Amino acid sequence: MECIDIAKVISFSREKPRKVGLFRTERCQVDLYYLQPGQSQAPHVHEGIDKVYYIVEGKGSFTIGGEERALGKGEVALAPAKAEHGLENRGPGSLVMLVFVAPPLSEPRR
Amino acid sequence: MECIDIAKVISFSREKPRKVGLFRTERCQVDLYYLQPGQSQAPHVHEGIDKVYYIVEGKGSFTIGGEERALGKGEVALAPAKAEHGLENRGPGSLVMLVFVAPPLSEPRR
Repeated sequence: MECIDIAKVISFSREKPRKVGLFRTERCQVDLYYLQPGQSQAPHVHEGIDKVYYIVEGKGSFTIGGEERALGKGEVALAPAKAEHGLENRGPGSLVMLVFVAPPLSEPRR
Repeated sequence: MECIDIAKVISFSREKPRKVGLFRTERCQVDLYYLQPGQSQAPHVHEGIDKVYYIVEGKGSFTIGGEERALGKGEVALAPAKAEHGLENRGPGSLVMLVFVAPPLSEPRR
């Protein structure tokens, strides 16, 4: 059985946001994102891919489809295909997110 | 922006497991599952659908592809297409899960 305890794969980096791949199938991809205060993911668009963020720890400032919103632990947000999306951890704490993507990104796991 | 605070949609039922739809797109579906002690989801198979469980609260006994395992808060598991999967809350507490499915199920939201 493929299962992972996310508490065991915490992986922050001082230099840049970290992304840890959990699962990848033909149909979807699941990653953990780790952002320290001041780290961000620049706004970008996926043409045919939906992305769902679930905030496990901390809080972040999300911009999706031109709307900005602060989301915290226990909140879940959809960045649908074609909607520009980005986020920033403005602190003070670390930000941990579970990110579901369908279909999987073409890029390799980092 | 489509975003939901899952603490605000808690929805247990004494009679049967509850499923609350959060997002549904062409490519994926995200639901919350709520199981009280003694409640279960019978083993079943999706031919062309992958399912990912994330345990938000509590613990459950999961059977995926013939393997049984107890998973708790913070663990994430993949039930890939064609793998029989089911789960049971053997207690003592409530079980809350975020469930990501790609592509979406054909059934309507319940």
